[in-house]
Amino acid sequence: MSLSLGPKGGPVLIVGSVAYDSVRTPFGEVEDALGGAACYASVSASFFSPVRLVGVVGEDFKYEHVAELAHRDVDLEGLRRSPGKTFHWSGYYEYDLSQAHTTATELNVFEDFLPDLPEAYRDTPFVFLANIDPALQLTVLDQVRRPTLVACDTMNFWIEGARDRVLEVLARCDIALMNDAEARQLSGEPNLIAAARHVLNYGPGVVVIKKGEHGSFMMSRDSFFAAPSYPLGEVRDPTGAGDTFAGGLIGHLARVGAEGDDAFRRAVICGSVMASFTVEDFSLSRLLRLKPEEISERYHEIVAMTRFGEL
Amino acid sequence: MSLSLGPKGGPVLIVGSVAYDSVRTPFGEVEDALGGAACYASVSASFFSPVRLVGVVGEDFKYEHVAELAHRDVDLEGLRRSPGKTFHWSGYYEYDLSQAHTTATELNVFEDFLPDLPEAYRDTPFVFLANIDPALQLTVLDQVRRPTLVACDTMNFWIEGARDRVLEVLARCDIALMNDAEARQLSGEPNLIAAARHVLNYGPGVVVIKKGEHGSFMMSRDSFFAAPSYPLGEVRDPTGAGDTFAGGLIGHLARVGAEGDDAFRRAVICGSVMASFTVEDFSLSRLLRLKPEEISERYHEIVAMTRFGEL
Repeated sequence: MSLSLGPKGGPVLIVGSVAYDSVRTPFGEVEDALGGAACYASVSASFFSPVRLVGVVGEDFKYEHVAELAHRDVDLEGLRRSPGKTFHWSGYYEYDLSQAHTTATELNVFEDFLPDLPEAYRDTPFVFLANIDPALQLTVLDQVRRPTLVACDTMNFWIEGARDRVLEVLARCDIALMNDAEARQLSGEPNLIAAARHVLNYGPGVVVIKKGEHGSFMMSRDSFFAAPSYPLGEVRDPTGAGDTFAGGLIGHLARVGAEGDDAFRRAVICGSVMASFTVEDFSLSRLLRLKPEEISERYHEIVAMTRFGEL
Repeated sequence: MSLSLGPKGGPVLIVGSVAYDSVRTPFGEVEDALGGAACYASVSASFFSPVRLVGVVGEDFKYEHVAELAHRDVDLEGLRRSPGKTFHWSGYYEYDLSQAHTTATELNVFEDFLPDLPEAYRDTPFVFLANIDPALQLTVLDQVRRPTLVACDTMNFWIEGARDRVLEVLARCDIALMNDAEARQLSGEPNLIAAARHVLNYGPGVVVIKKGEHGSFMMSRDSFFAAPSYPLGEVRDPTGAGDTFAGGLIGHLARVGAEGDDAFRRAVICGSVMASFTVEDFSLSRLLRLKPEEISERYHEIVAMTRFGEL
């Protein structure tokens, strides 16, 4: 896989949380480990395309973490450092790793986060709005100038508490990413296919539904694509899998230019591949030691495991 | 799609329950409708290959149902009629259609079911042991002579209560079919990939894990295949989906001869396609009005929705 940008490619702007997470699963635990949706998405996307990160951290944010992000070609001009502590999430998982249990959410400096894009970021062609208050997602959309492609994520908290603004964001996005439960909640449709169709009606041209270990699917008005997850016999920590998926997806589109159904399908598989690495270890540990050739290998394995002949 | 048998094909022997079901879902209900694992599997397989059905019904079993099965090229010499009533299952589903709630199981004539294969059945090359007491599955295996391929299904009840005999059956089968919960229960592994590997160690060359709306995967010692379910915006009654899947799978293998990884992959897709029809209506209604060309169409749609290019 060549990591150089295609003629239509460009950098990716990623806006969202940078956090310290304390996570326990049946397979281990970490304290104050690097996390946050924007962080997972940025490192993931950086394997495909240069990334510009917009977020906020506190005074406790460690230089080593800044260095790790910078080392991955993540531009940090948009990462503000504010007085106070970095956003902190604590949670655990039982053997059902699809269900995160939150024990504490300390917003800290994230509480007053107002995305203010550096001038140099405003023409970024590819934009990923990670899960944050949809009001803030809208302010980002007001600041960018004619992006090529905008993708957004959301979560149950905003669907419940700020539904109208979530719908406003969806209407201004090209790709809506969400997990199965969020799609059902947003649409009121228990059937996931019907739910995805419903979300399309809110405006985005493409909906990608993430189903964890069950893979994902992508739906547009005239195409449907089913993607498996990469089969892993051991998952240590699912935190950040969905954000990593989104990063791989938008990163690939930024690399090749978002044209044609197959570019989007390959992007979904890139998302799947990247997420499969994240869950192999806690925090961003696996992503930060990942080699590009491992991505190609796993991608080709998914090709092989989905091929079958005509009837 | 040609429905004629290939040079290596042959009929399929299917052993299991023939039942009357009373089922309620959020989308309707039926009383005393044709059902039972062997019934779903037989009608499904009959679209690909001649079927020989071994089961038992009571005196209440209607001629119209005999006629419907016979009309589908299902040989009924092995369907015994016993004094008493036909096996009856009553259950319902909430909006989560993956979870069946049983309200009554009346075994009736099925309680004394002892599969006794007609002499003409004993050389049947393809055998599907639907979910029944593993002790009975073993007596079937004792009666058949050098089958080409044996597939089996099971359920939580037997894994819990007759584990050793379930393992005996698995050791004598080529393909073990089960759903995700059963694989986890049998193996004691919460991770589904690890669970499937574990089941392979019990002896079968191939394990197929059915995941309902999330599709299925097939694992052997040197191959992995991920198959989506056919996306349906409306599912009316999931009863019999897994049995229909198994019937399509073994039916296809019986049609083309069970040789080569791709034949097995195509068989899994046939299973997926057949199951997608069953769940569109209650009982066997949809299967019994299905046209062969609808199978080919849906198969090709799955081809189209799983294709993507190299990185």
